Amino acid sequence: MSLQAIVDLVTICAKKGVKNAILSPGSRCAPLTIAFARHPEIKTRTISDERSAAFVALGIAQQLEEPVVLVCTSGSAALNYFPAIAEAFFQEIPLLILTADRPPEWIDQWDGQTIFQPEVYGKHVKKFFQLPDSFESKDQLWHAHRIVNEAINLSKNGPKGPVHINIPLREPFYPKKGEELIPSSELQVFDFERGQKHLSEKSLQELQKNLEEFNRILIVPGQQKPNSIYQQALEKLIQKKKTVVVSDCISNLQVDGSITLHDHWLGYEHINKNLKPDLVITFGKSLISKPLKLFLRKQQITHWHIQPHDGVKDTFQHLNKILDCEPGFFLEWLVDNLPIQSQSYFENWQDLEQEVQQALPPTLENTDFGEYQTLQEVLSTIPSNSKIHLANSMAVRYVNFLGKRNQEIICNRGTSGIDGTNSTAVGCALTTSKFVTIITGDLAFFYDRNAFWNNYETPNLRIVLLNNHAGGIFRLIDGPKEQPELEEYFETHQALTANYLAEEHGFEYSRAQNIQQIELALKEFYTTSSKPKILEIESKSAKNAEILKSVKETILKHLEI
Amino acid sequence: MSLQAIVDLVTICAKKGVKNAILSPGSRCAPLTIAFARHPEIKTRTISDERSAAFVALGIAQQLEEPVVLVCTSGSAALNYFPAIAEAFFQEIPLLILTADRPPEWIDQWDGQTIFQPEVYGKHVKKFFQLPDSFESKDQLWHAHRIVNEAINLSKNGPKGPVHINIPLREPFYPKKGEELIPSSELQVFDFERGQKHLSEKSLQELQKNLEEFNRILIVPGQQKPNSIYQQALEKLIQKKKTVVVSDCISNLQVDGSITLHDHWLGYEHINKNLKPDLVITFGKSLISKPLKLFLRKQQITHWHIQPHDGVKDTFQHLNKILDCEPGFFLEWLVDNLPIQSQSYFENWQDLEQEVQQALPPTLENTDFGEYQTLQEVLSTIPSNSKIHLANSMAVRYVNFLGKRNQEIICNRGTSGIDGTNSTAVGCALTTSKFVTIITGDLAFFYDRNAFWNNYETPNLRIVLLNNHAGGIFRLIDGPKEQPELEEYFETHQALTANYLAEEHGFEYSRAQNIQQIELALKEFYTTSSKPKILEIESKSAKNAEILKSVKETILKHLEI
Repeated sequence: MSLQAIVDLVTICAKKGVKNAILSPGSRCAPLTIAFARHPEIKTRTISDERSAAFVALGIAQQLEEPVVLVCTSGSAALNYFPAIAEAFFQEIPLLILTADRPPEWIDQWDGQTIFQPEVYGKHVKKFFQLPDSFESKDQLWHAHRIVNEAINLSKNGPKGPVHINIPLREPFYPKKGEELIPSSELQVFDFERGQKHLSEKSLQELQKNLEEFNRILIVPGQQKPNSIYQQALEKLIQKKKTVVVSDCISNLQVDGSITLHDHWLGYEHINKNLKPDLVITFGKSLISKPLKLFLRKQQITHWHIQPHDGVKDTFQHLNKILDCEPGFFLEWLVDNLPIQSQSYFENWQDLEQEVQQALPPTLENTDFGEYQTLQEVLSTIPSNSKIHLANSMAVRYVNFLGKRNQEIICNRGTSGIDGTNSTAVGCALTTSKFVTIITGDLAFFYDRNAFWNNYETPNLRIVLLNNHAGGIFRLIDGPKEQPELEEYFETHQALTANYLAEEHGFEYSRAQNIQQIELALKEFYTTSSKPKILEIESKSAKNAEILKSVKETILKHLEI
Repeated sequence: MSLQAIVDLVTICAKKGVKNAILSPGSRCAPLTIAFARHPEIKTRTISDERSAAFVALGIAQQLEEPVVLVCTSGSAALNYFPAIAEAFFQEIPLLILTADRPPEWIDQWDGQTIFQPEVYGKHVKKFFQLPDSFESKDQLWHAHRIVNEAINLSKNGPKGPVHINIPLREPFYPKKGEELIPSSELQVFDFERGQKHLSEKSLQELQKNLEEFNRILIVPGQQKPNSIYQQALEKLIQKKKTVVVSDCISNLQVDGSITLHDHWLGYEHINKNLKPDLVITFGKSLISKPLKLFLRKQQITHWHIQPHDGVKDTFQHLNKILDCEPGFFLEWLVDNLPIQSQSYFENWQDLEQEVQQALPPTLENTDFGEYQTLQEVLSTIPSNSKIHLANSMAVRYVNFLGKRNQEIICNRGTSGIDGTNSTAVGCALTTSKFVTIITGDLAFFYDRNAFWNNYETPNLRIVLLNNHAGGIFRLIDGPKEQPELEEYFETHQALTANYLAEEHGFEYSRAQNIQQIELALKEFYTTSSKPKILEIESKSAKNAEILKSVKETILKHLEI
């Protein structure tokens, strides 16, 4: 009867629109593997390293905004999923995690490949379910059906996220030779039609009154997927000079007129005095810019956050009002209802943006060869329809320094780990025929090298590897750079280059150590190919730190003239 | 004051005998990193991939039987530790896991690199502690000291195992330039003197009476470290023909006269009828032999398990008595007190062992080239003082088929995952100048290839890689081999060979595709070198399955004549 429940589970998944499953090989999970592999409406792929498998699933779900199924066997397999699951939880990406398990009576009895799987992801999944392990009563099969419905609905609702079903399985695991898998005739499916939260007329009247108290409004979108409704509303607000919009690259809302070069001045109090907002409105998730966060924490501001579900954070320590509605609804309302604003405040921000916009390119051109200059060159070559995956920690910071991007920017800022960038991008590349470009440092790149250890082709993948043979970020923060432990324990020097990896996987590979080599390599980088391409850019960590410092100083001088 | 608590923590670790710490780079964990790196009595190493780092720590602790410290930064780093932590929990290996964290007020506030770290390992650590995050009162520093003492004591007590301390840290993270780290003057250390459990005279008298009811005793040691006291007691019992001892390779008690080739006949009822024990006595942890487990489950036996602490498992479903004492104490008592036993029962087992011992080598010599024959060749070359690390899943099974080994056998049978074999062996190799040999399949090998991504030399490491480009085990079990999904979803074909990896890391490398090449490669395999050596043996998964089947049949025929 276990097999029947599994066939039903897969059928319900398909009926509820699940289109992708990433399986990892195992014996206990065989019924799930077979039922998914045989279902004509679900695309299955198998990936052996579960850590990578889960990030690939996340990369797919991040794009499709629909739950992707993960299937693994019992034991430590489930634990290797965990980094991606935590990322999915904090980044609100829907995953349906199906872990096969031994039946409860055989857990922890020295009988091999068991851990304590129930609740194993703790607070990092939206909900945990245990599938029944026997089906004596018809109600138990109904219970199993109900769990699958609930789990999928939950993964797609409110803040989307990962949901875990642990599935105890007794033998037999395999259908008989030639046996067809037929779902139960009574197969209950209950779908979930997501509601749209608006604010009442009464609330809006109240808010309109509140808004009269403010004349220096700052809108700060946090990390999110591109959204044309938000984009249009923000563009209208800026056109009417009604608000300043400060957009990190991960907001995917670096719209016309938004501020994108704020990292260059927000750290300096004497420049900031004319920029102080009185009301900050945010929506979406985290920011990448530390100067922006610190700037907002320091001000006496009122902070409103728009979010149509629970779990609002107080990132700036000034949270004052939670607007429990769709951001699009409120932004469009603002376009029509925002009172007149301080024009000098608006222009102060715009002036700084324009000055840095002019000063940055020549400054970079005049610096020595290093990651900063290199990245400007690379970014100017990436096709506008390529999606860009940025690794933590320096890659995403550099891109934020460099201002406005048109491409979709993806970065695992849920937990901000360096652990799954490549795999997430591989998942993304499987969903599109457009180019997908990874920009990564060497630590993140080699950490997740098993991203490429599978049998699925991603010829649209392009990898820009900034190899400084170390965790260069540690040379840029004040504490560690003064410690004798810097090189061994913080930067953690590592000797690898990507040429062997490229050969191993048949990827096209080029290495650049100066700007001419980069220009040459980039000429061919976005021509079509049957395999991914790697452009490895080698530079020195100490030099990069020096350049970053000198560019900062040059820009600052420019702003003060 | 946070820094002071960390300096004290490291000092207490050193005073309590901690000798090794594996650090992974990060910013939040900087105070821990610096305090460990500067302590003259603790050897610190830094490894970037936390999944590998934790298995390396496990490999060291497995050898030293003393807690090894793990230090990581906040966020998903801690999750990458989890597979090794679960393995340590079920294999009862002492680890002290120190995860740096943001202070509680900044968790889940979109401020980067946080997850929910408290209790994150659930039931897979012996205990979880949260270090205080402020030190206004003197009692809070005492609390921090006490936690460190308790945690280390716990990791070494009863069933040893991992203990987790989560450490919220506020800035400043770094001592001033040139500042010395001085521990508090009042630094409480309380050690733990482990007791030895014996049984009372009264209990022993009772047991002696019980023993009179049995005359076919089977002793089955589970997985454990080599132990000369147990070895001597078992040898005496066998010499006196008082018990049959059946020893899997992972028991490290394949003593003179013990049965080691049982996998060849225990699956066959018609051979087993003269082998049935009436009392089975076990100690140690899990078995590798599935036929042995199934044989014991089927019999009407009485099962006594010797274990001086809680958590006894009922692996054979016949558990009848738990002997709450040191195994050595009870085994030595048995030597003097076991009544006379059935001699025919004893000889039936010995006869089978001897017959297979004679039949197996010529049978293997006459088979085609494949993993089975290869492994016999390899095993006969491994120096007797080399430790052998076996990967799950086929490597350890093959070695168990091949009978008695003198070398220490290590295999991660706590969770029986394929995820950390290389790293565990690297950890082992760091503790000894003797050879450490890994025998592994391709899936386990490439899964954990980041084991070699660190800056520590292990010239004593030798790797025998059985590359059949798939998870060959799935072709050997009845269910999947009949399914159309076999090759893609169970075996999971993979194309890699180890030559690129070897070049990348500067390892010596040879490849063998027939027995002559293997013999040639083995001649130089155990000469000293400055780098590890890899011997990659390529064979066909389908052929290996065929050979295994035909060897089984030949041996069976031999036993029935």
